[in-house]
Amino acid sequence: MNLRLDIEFDGTDFVGWQRQAAGRSVQGELERALAILLRLPQVTVIGAGRTDAGVHARGMVANIRTDAPLPDLGRLQRGLVGLLPPDIAVQRVTEVSDDFHARFDARARRYHYHVSAVPLALERRSVWFLPEPLDLDRMNRAARPLLGEHDFAAFCKVKSEVDHHRCTLTEARWDQTDADRLTFTVEANRFLHGMVRALVGTLVAVGRGKWPVEAPGEILASRDRRRAGQAAPAHGLSLDLVRYPDDATHLAQSRPDVVP
Amino acid sequence: MNLRLDIEFDGTDFVGWQRQAAGRSVQGELERALAILLRLPQVTVIGAGRTDAGVHARGMVANIRTDAPLPDLGRLQRGLVGLLPPDIAVQRVTEVSDDFHARFDARARRYHYHVSAVPLALERRSVWFLPEPLDLDRMNRAARPLLGEHDFAAFCKVKSEVDHHRCTLTEARWDQTDADRLTFTVEANRFLHGMVRALVGTLVAVGRGKWPVEAPGEILASRDRRRAGQAAPAHGLSLDLVRYPDDATHLAQSRPDVVP
Repeated sequence: MNLRLDIEFDGTDFVGWQRQAAGRSVQGELERALAILLRLPQVTVIGAGRTDAGVHARGMVANIRTDAPLPDLGRLQRGLVGLLPPDIAVQRVTEVSDDFHARFDARARRYHYHVSAVPLALERRSVWFLPEPLDLDRMNRAARPLLGEHDFAAFCKVKSEVDHHRCTLTEARWDQTDADRLTFTVEANRFLHGMVRALVGTLVAVGRGKWPVEAPGEILASRDRRRAGQAAPAHGLSLDLVRYPDDATHLAQSRPDVVP
Repeated sequence: MNLRLDIEFDGTDFVGWQRQAAGRSVQGELERALAILLRLPQVTVIGAGRTDAGVHARGMVANIRTDAPLPDLGRLQRGLVGLLPPDIAVQRVTEVSDDFHARFDARARRYHYHVSAVPLALERRSVWFLPEPLDLDRMNRAARPLLGEHDFAAFCKVKSEVDHHRCTLTEARWDQTDADRLTFTVEANRFLHGMVRALVGTLVAVGRGKWPVEAPGEILASRDRRRAGQAAPAHGLSLDLVRYPDDATHLAQSRPDVVP
């Protein structure tokens, strides 16, 4: 049986999504809780993407394949809520077709980055407080050349190991989402290591008037990692949606609610 | 000089707004930070209302009167951001007319209470996770008789010491604010101790189908403290707006931003 998990997590106290030799990872906590619930020595959770330390998710998707006898899925979801630490919330557990793969089948990932001009208390862990004024129009004009398929090597962390740096951005837009809040929405087929934070840092340098509107497009074309702006802090970033080719084909059974 | 402070706070780790013999209070933390910044032995901060332990605020208003020499107000606000703990955010400092009193001049207070049918990670400290299905229409019909001026003794904590229990509710409405979220908005000229949480607990009992739609109106009319539903937990509640008769008359000087 193949199960899809829809997950929200507060990345503040994690080394990131991926299981690592040391430190709390979201994947590691999920695998630990699932192994207990499914009475298995080990479980492998496949995530749609690897988020960095401190980055959040409101729409992470993962799947697990198992032949173990399963409890009712509602009960499994409630069991996970009880066993997992409060900074991971498995919101839905759904049976999907055997060939669904959370990572390989993902067609697009959508991130949001939140910036506030006033200090916040309740959302201090998920919004970047930046008191300097930002020019929304300049940031949006600067973001336009990023749309489409490009080599994003200039916005990728040096230590990243990937075959190529081509990504197709289908959205890259700043919105005024509240009186004192700006939100960057960015969607692409794939993202490189540290890419969204480098893009946000670069666009914010334009919004502050430190860099010209043309800078991000020029940095992109240069493919030079040393030219991008300072990465924005991790805590303003959240993976909020993962798109699959046709969700319906993967949902063998629909569980609209966690209601008992 | 009389200064108005607009404050957001995360009530999780406070004994409440009001300074108390023991424990962290929002008022106490503000008074401590202001005394340091204004180089005064003691400062008194007047708040618009006293929130309970665990209750949040996105729109608390307070004022301080002082003859001490003041730094530039932007600098004072930034100084407060630096000196206060991260769960208190003073978002604006404004000079107001000498007779402005944050508590006595307040004409209405508006609270929100958030309930989620799915578990949350990022907002786990400010939303009540309640997996049982709630009937929005039933809750709104049940809330209607609460509107207007009534004696709310039935929804007041026994230990409360007030002259009378009359309050005028101008709003009491549940909205579906997200796929899995319901929000209760309630506004009144005044609230009694524990009143919003008792109202929410009672309305939720109706929404779950445990009590009839008529129950809240009958409990109100009974003035019997023993009949109200179990109080909803504090962490779903937030004081989000305080209304004053004519803000303009109180704003001697406008500081639209925290920009330096």
